[in-house]
Amino acid sequence: MDKLNEVTEYLKENGIDAAFVTTPDNVFYLSGFQSDPHERLLAVAVFKDADPFVIAPKMEVPDVKAAGWNGEVIGHEDTDDAWEIVAKAVADRNVRPGSIAVEKVHMNVERYERLAQLYPDAAFTGLDAKLNEMRNIKGEEELQKLRKAAELADYAVEVGCREIAEGKTELEILMAIEFEMKKKGVSHMSFDTMVLSGPKTASPHGNPGTRKIQKGDFVLFDLGVVWEGYCSDITRTVSFGEPSEKQRDIYETVRRAEQAAVDAVRPGVRAMDLDKTARDVITEAGYGEYFTHRLGHGLGISVHEFPSIHGANEVKLQEGMVFTVEPGIYHPDVTGVRIEDDVVVTADGVEVLTKFPKDLQIIG
Amino acid sequence: MDKLNEVTEYLKENGIDAAFVTTPDNVFYLSGFQSDPHERLLAVAVFKDADPFVIAPKMEVPDVKAAGWNGEVIGHEDTDDAWEIVAKAVADRNVRPGSIAVEKVHMNVERYERLAQLYPDAAFTGLDAKLNEMRNIKGEEELQKLRKAAELADYAVEVGCREIAEGKTELEILMAIEFEMKKKGVSHMSFDTMVLSGPKTASPHGNPGTRKIQKGDFVLFDLGVVWEGYCSDITRTVSFGEPSEKQRDIYETVRRAEQAAVDAVRPGVRAMDLDKTARDVITEAGYGEYFTHRLGHGLGISVHEFPSIHGANEVKLQEGMVFTVEPGIYHPDVTGVRIEDDVVVTADGVEVLTKFPKDLQIIG
Repeated sequence: MDKLNEVTEYLKENGIDAAFVTTPDNVFYLSGFQSDPHERLLAVAVFKDADPFVIAPKMEVPDVKAAGWNGEVIGHEDTDDAWEIVAKAVADRNVRPGSIAVEKVHMNVERYERLAQLYPDAAFTGLDAKLNEMRNIKGEEELQKLRKAAELADYAVEVGCREIAEGKTELEILMAIEFEMKKKGVSHMSFDTMVLSGPKTASPHGNPGTRKIQKGDFVLFDLGVVWEGYCSDITRTVSFGEPSEKQRDIYETVRRAEQAAVDAVRPGVRAMDLDKTARDVITEAGYGEYFTHRLGHGLGISVHEFPSIHGANEVKLQEGMVFTVEPGIYHPDVTGVRIEDDVVVTADGVEVLTKFPKDLQIIG
Repeated sequence: MDKLNEVTEYLKENGIDAAFVTTPDNVFYLSGFQSDPHERLLAVAVFKDADPFVIAPKMEVPDVKAAGWNGEVIGHEDTDDAWEIVAKAVADRNVRPGSIAVEKVHMNVERYERLAQLYPDAAFTGLDAKLNEMRNIKGEEELQKLRKAAELADYAVEVGCREIAEGKTELEILMAIEFEMKKKGVSHMSFDTMVLSGPKTASPHGNPGTRKIQKGDFVLFDLGVVWEGYCSDITRTVSFGEPSEKQRDIYETVRRAEQAAVDAVRPGVRAMDLDKTARDVITEAGYGEYFTHRLGHGLGISVHEFPSIHGANEVKLQEGMVFTVEPGIYHPDVTGVRIEDDVVVTADGVEVLTKFPKDLQIIG
């Protein structure tokens, strides 16, 4: 409930009477309860001077409590007007909000108008920046989940490598990986697993299919798992059989670029400079035009969150930030290669969460 | 572009100058282009008296055209202010909107405030009801996709039945089904595939796991695929080995309830009466307390859309509506059974899209 207290403090400091948090990721962040309620109302209500509550679909009320929420949980049924129930709970707390914080990037206009109707005199303010700032810095409890998610991603790549064989399809390997993850208790991958082979590695938009793997292919794995609500995201590119000289040159260039960026991670470095560190290595090797995306993205409850590691982001790294470092070269005539790690900014440098080897793995 | 014309007509009839459609499902519905742009702007702009345009992330512009959109497509990059680009495209059309329609259930407050800032004198109105009404009635082109999606779901159940064997786990069967679907060109299932066995069939919240299937189990499949943007959703419950008398009684009750509801589908019938038709059969058989959810839900681009087939919905069925009929009995001491078909309301009755047999299948 530390995070909840931080929101309460924020409301006090800024003289805001109430906050309604409705993004599923942020509801999870503040309450410990993770669920996608679709069109139904699921919210954490936080007050400057009153006890918080969660409002949730009635059938989920026991799950909210089981998730560790110690405060009040109010259920609503499909036949209820959920906002009337919210209004009653607020009134029961003797709160008459004159100012309300909401997530302007998530709350839809219909709900906003409804709140404005319930509290016609209230001023509305955004809570997005505060929540993003909080989520930007991970605490030890979160890091433990991220470490475990990364460990499972390492293992997933190991499974993928073990499955590579002449004539096997990308999809067969993909399914073997996901099956093994499910057996390990992973209920969801953090995004659609990528297994691409041969020329398909050079397409940033490739979809795994029935292409049969053959000697001389590079095979690219890009995958991650959700573990206790936190995501991992790893990419490794391996060689099936001996690589050509050009394949090896591209691989080693990406390898050096990735390592240079990882080694440069420490508090105070700007995101844009990190991007440049990797990009310079690739550009100097003559492959600059084939590195067509940003260096990385923040990682946590969401697989894409702050900070964004791109060439125009001046934000300075801080201890506790977690993000991906994932340079790539997509050469249409040779191969695509991407290497991606998940890293944490520590007090004096970096902790790399993903540990699958980055020396070029030659299989078969 | 018929649907686009219908929106234009709606704007003319209601004297609304412009509409900005941003829900990915509705962008697909109007433009033929399907994508989840996450936080990036993807919108279809429609005008009372000017040509429509699509604004999309620059890298997706070719895909919008390839999807069959014949109008203008405007790209924006991450470093652009996408709304400034929208404002320019609107001004280029000599439109100064005094009234703007948006999807109030989807548009977030941040975008709404941005639009209000660009057009401070504009009145905002909801487009949700009109789009829902349009999507509620499927045309022949949409039905063809839904038929194909249902055919693939039938096949998925067939694959699942073929995989059932003593000692196999739910997850093994699930992966075999999804693998076969991927080989058929299905890129996404329409929701997380369910394969539940034995006592787990009685839990509406069950997750497929490593439980090994054994003789005497009922096995419940609930799954669907997305085909060219349209979803299917089928449930079948089958018996591994000879069922007990009680299992058979529950199965036959659900079977009769489901068939009674399907047979009652025709224009003019109220959704609530359809729900009652199935529920009465189950209640009369003494299992009423174990049928704990609504009869069904609309189906189309989204796996849950209008109309909702529940006991309080007075809406009358119309030709072209597509929805699921899925009664169930979840008896904690015996078994769970659910049977689900996808149906279309025709001029004088019903077309059933899902065709996997509903006689109790006894396997092994």
